[in-house]
Amino acid sequence: MALTAAQLQELAEAKAARAETRRPTVPALEAMLFEPVPVLDHGFVRVVDYMGDDAAVVQAARVSYGRGTKAVLEDRGLIRYLMRHRHSTPFEMCEIKYHVKLPIFVARQWIRHRTANVNEYSARYSIMDREFYLPAPEHLAAQSASNRQGRGEVLQGAEAAHVLDLLREDSLRNYDHYQEMLNADEEGKVLDPARQGLARELARMNLTLNAYTQWYWKTDLHNLLNFLSLRGDPHAQYEIRAYAEVMMASLEAWVPAVAEAFRDYRLGAVTFSAQMLEVVKRLLAGEAVEQAGSGLSRREWRELMEQLGRPA
Amino acid sequence: MALTAAQLQELAEAKAARAETRRPTVPALEAMLFEPVPVLDHGFVRVVDYMGDDAAVVQAARVSYGRGTKAVLEDRGLIRYLMRHRHSTPFEMCEIKYHVKLPIFVARQWIRHRTANVNEYSARYSIMDREFYLPAPEHLAAQSASNRQGRGEVLQGAEAAHVLDLLREDSLRNYDHYQEMLNADEEGKVLDPARQGLARELARMNLTLNAYTQWYWKTDLHNLLNFLSLRGDPHAQYEIRAYAEVMMASLEAWVPAVAEAFRDYRLGAVTFSAQMLEVVKRLLAGEAVEQAGSGLSRREWRELMEQLGRPA
Amino acid sequence: MALTAAQLQELAEAKAARAETRRPTVPALEAMLFEPVPVLDHGFVRVVDYMGDDAAVVQAARVSYGRGTKAVLEDRGLIRYLMRHRHSTPFEMCEIKYHVKLPIFVARQWIRHRTANVNEYSARYSIMDREFYLPAPEHLAAQSASNRQGRGEVLQGAEAAHVLDLLREDSLRNYDHYQEMLNADEEGKVLDPARQGLARELARMNLTLNAYTQWYWKTDLHNLLNFLSLRGDPHAQYEIRAYAEVMMASLEAWVPAVAEAFRDYRLGAVTFSAQMLEVVKRLLAGEAVEQAGSGLSRREWRELMEQLGRPA
Amino acid sequence: MALTAAQLQELAEAKAARAETRRPTVPALEAMLFEPVPVLDHGFVRVVDYMGDDAAVVQAARVSYGRGTKAVLEDRGLIRYLMRHRHSTPFEMCEIKYHVKLPIFVARQWIRHRTANVNEYSARYSIMDREFYLPAPEHLAAQSASNRQGRGEVLQGAEAAHVLDLLREDSLRNYDHYQEMLNADEEGKVLDPARQGLARELARMNLTLNAYTQWYWKTDLHNLLNFLSLRGDPHAQYEIRAYAEVMMASLEAWVPAVAEAFRDYRLGAVTFSAQMLEVVKRLLAGEAVEQAGSGLSRREWRELMEQLGRPA
Repeated sequence: MALTAAQLQELAEAKAARAETRRPTVPALEAMLFEPVPVLDHGFVRVVDYMGDDAAVVQAARVSYGRGTKAVLEDRGLIRYLMRHRHSTPFEMCEIKYHVKLPIFVARQWIRHRTANVNEYSARYSIMDREFYLPAPEHLAAQSASNRQGRGEVLQGAEAAHVLDLLREDSLRNYDHYQEMLNADEEGKVLDPARQGLARELARMNLTLNAYTQWYWKTDLHNLLNFLSLRGDPHAQYEIRAYAEVMMASLEAWVPAVAEAFRDYRLGAVTFSAQMLEVVKRLLAGEAVEQAGSGLSRREWRELMEQLGRPA
Repeated sequence: MALTAAQLQELAEAKAARAETRRPTVPALEAMLFEPVPVLDHGFVRVVDYMGDDAAVVQAARVSYGRGTKAVLEDRGLIRYLMRHRHSTPFEMCEIKYHVKLPIFVARQWIRHRTANVNEYSARYSIMDREFYLPAPEHLAAQSASNRQGRGEVLQGAEAAHVLDLLREDSLRNYDHYQEMLNADEEGKVLDPARQGLARELARMNLTLNAYTQWYWKTDLHNLLNFLSLRGDPHAQYEIRAYAEVMMASLEAWVPAVAEAFRDYRLGAVTFSAQMLEVVKRLLAGEAVEQAGSGLSRREWRELMEQLGRPA
Repeated sequence: MALTAAQLQELAEAKAARAETRRPTVPALEAMLFEPVPVLDHGFVRVVDYMGDDAAVVQAARVSYGRGTKAVLEDRGLIRYLMRHRHSTPFEMCEIKYHVKLPIFVARQWIRHRTANVNEYSARYSIMDREFYLPAPEHLAAQSASNRQGRGEVLQGAEAAHVLDLLREDSLRNYDHYQEMLNADEEGKVLDPARQGLARELARMNLTLNAYTQWYWKTDLHNLLNFLSLRGDPHAQYEIRAYAEVMMASLEAWVPAVAEAFRDYRLGAVTFSAQMLEVVKRLLAGEAVEQAGSGLSRREWRELMEQLGRPA
Repeated sequence: MALTAAQLQELAEAKAARAETRRPTVPALEAMLFEPVPVLDHGFVRVVDYMGDDAAVVQAARVSYGRGTKAVLEDRGLIRYLMRHRHSTPFEMCEIKYHVKLPIFVARQWIRHRTANVNEYSARYSIMDREFYLPAPEHLAAQSASNRQGRGEVLQGAEAAHVLDLLREDSLRNYDHYQEMLNADEEGKVLDPARQGLARELARMNLTLNAYTQWYWKTDLHNLLNFLSLRGDPHAQYEIRAYAEVMMASLEAWVPAVAEAFRDYRLGAVTFSAQMLEVVKRLLAGEAVEQAGSGLSRREWRELMEQLGRPA
């Protein structure tokens, strides 16, 4: 996240600017505006702009003429009702815009959230930074034995060291060759006037998937919650979860009542199938239910017992 | 557009509020905020919130760290380039939210723009206002003879008067029966304690399509331009065009450089097919081209000559 | 649902046609193709085309080269896994297209599902049919006292009869005036050569919201499930639920394994908030929990007890 | 595009299968079904399924009861009208599904088309193939001097050879290290039982952006045309254009009337701004217009003269 002097200057100016507005304004989020919050080794998330607040959700749900902020308690109740019953349109009435720096393999997961606006740094047009994600030792995990798309224990000792060496050396070598093919350095200065240099749109293909890219990403609050719910989940890959956690903090600052309802009714919620609910009812009636007679597969049984905090 | 005292009070409070913000702010649009601009006989459009400005388009296109407002002239050039080459994503980085009151048959055209966020006043939950669109005399047009979905001359005299009488009487009678079925007045007060009253979600079906509804409608700038381009077009039905024109004025206040580029490259632009372009080239070469040998159908020929300002 | 002789002829021809294809084909759905299934008093739903089947979901989830139908049991297991964990993209790989005739007030709810393709019959271009929805006596319900957007008991006797009279008379009178203003009958024949007739796009505004319109509606399987889940729910308005039920039958014929998983994990499922789950755990541990000490609002407590089949 | 014996067997079975259907069927596209058409050095495009045909566009535009194929000439005229006036919804009524193998840097451009359904091969779950895109000598272009995101001349001699060596060696070395870190070969067989192996979701980050991935990609015809228009354009990067060209061939086979209208009114069309049209009119009136007095910037003037086939 090494910013140039010019970038730091731009940030400082943006942060120093003040204007008067009639729009809904959230001081807690204003305090965060423009400031890059570090994520992973070279990434960041910074809030660039926002529209609306908790009251804007209520205002839209009621199609009201004013701001409707008179009764904060009542607003909180309505927001909780809307979240519990999975209403979506009132939450679409708030919008937030982030500037994010992230490894390409994370960007490839992230972009699958289609209902968002994106402007990405163009490697056809510009030269990429010499920055690569290298996992911290505690995140260098082995393949999980039980979950084909998960992680197991953390690698140790020589194996860990060797893996890190390979990742580092390959990233840097490929980047050096990228510049060599471009015949240009990071600022675009020609290296060897006798050569032409490969087109940027081709040379970039030599970069590794841990290279950092960046983008502006703008979404409405409803789709932000979907993003946070999926990517903040313990089953999400750690590297994208790290971004979701920082964005969760901006959510708390921005729309505290929505964030609270989101934690209660989405993040902490469980969904039981018809058959699972039947098992819960039988258990509540004092029956001794076992997987065999439960109507659930072994996998579902295990999932249910885990959620109920009981031995499987 | 008769607002209640409570609504006027809410509006006045919203307009009086001021806060300090670090966000991009557009004074010309701030001056318009919250104020309902009348459209048709009882409708309105009011801007409720916005995100971004001309510079935000540039900032996103460049994925820059700051606001990038130093060189207004350069920004204008980039905006014109982006518009001319139909780039869309940088324009998606601005967002605007309107509160609109509009006849239901207009709402049915409008809602076809799917890439927007909408919260509509619920006739399942609430009682509709006693307001109906009745065309002004100059908009009471006959069916076009040449265009199956267009208008011809304005109706005159007895026919016009009769049509207006029918529209007015049917709207009002149906509304009166709506309240009678509901067994409630506009404020929900029960009319006859001996009756139950039909469910709101059913009674509403007796209303006519010129009844006014209202909604919050939020969209990004790119999709707003698509809306204005389609609905501000002379071929659009007058009643929705009246809304587009008011929104065009908010566009000019909000993002003047984008609005200028939009007028030049979208509103005033023409598209020629491969065959039409061929005809233009032959004409420029001094050839006397006629429809017969032009490769164009009669309809296309007529369209082309019209756009070139020549007799067909 | 009175079809003209020409329409019946078209239907018969479409149904009689046969072709050979290499595409996945579902005989049970083929048998339903093109046949209008009546809904409400004049509406219908008919399946016009489809793409994919149960195996296509599996094939996409595996990004496989062939059809992957060898192990039906294994396919079913994967489909249930995908549904349980709310995977969406594999279900987007199937597509279905309906032709629907429906009252305008139902169409206005339906169109809120934005991720679908729609072509609606144009009342700017064509003349609307003389058909209106009138509730059957058992659906003529009073406003619910407890739920502002729900129905209570069925209206009886004189009140019911009066309501039906009003609905019928207003619909027909307004339609007659619609034709009078158009100066044309249902086939477009001019009524009075001395008059011009109001433009179609204006005259339509005199119609009531129970007039029938029709459209082609096409969606992917994932979004169809969202539609069925929301509109097939007991809280949905009866009139749209009637359509959802007919479409549910086409789902069962088309993708039986997906339909089964959908019933188990979506339709019959319940979602408990973090606090609700805590209450369930305490109850399972034998504790006597009451609303007061549950951390739930009265409303939430009532909802939870209802789902657990316990007295509130 | 080396397929395994099992994959070839699956393909052969899919191609051999035949079923009877009542759905619209296009023999020319049926003949192409399932067959991978090679693109670049290891990629392919194959059509996996489709819905609709030329007549389905007409059928939806007319909201008709039957197939409406009686008058092919009339259908062609309507399709041309719809395309010329940029109607979109009737074209959304056809759908096509592809299986594509493509380099990751191409996939990153492609995925920006948001209105499509995608299932991509998961590198969290599976091991990637040892296949990388290496440009053919005639596509190994230098950076353009005039266009920051374009290509110039083809690299020659030693520089070309060196660039290709770097690309090849880096791709293969990084892949070998990927397997070494995974501690597994392409089929997932453990290499060294004494080691754990890095999680797949982490090891993949060592791959280069020219590694091949694959996905199922499904879209409606309207959005396919947008894709082909943008990605088949001479300004698109060659590597994605190569895919667009193969897909254009499937379009011609599938919906020949739509493809013809698309070539005439979209691919071959030009758009002139209000100012450009003014210049054309002045030229047609015999005036000698020059850039200075044209109201156009130098860049716009050059673009206009190019399109009119005149010296700038």
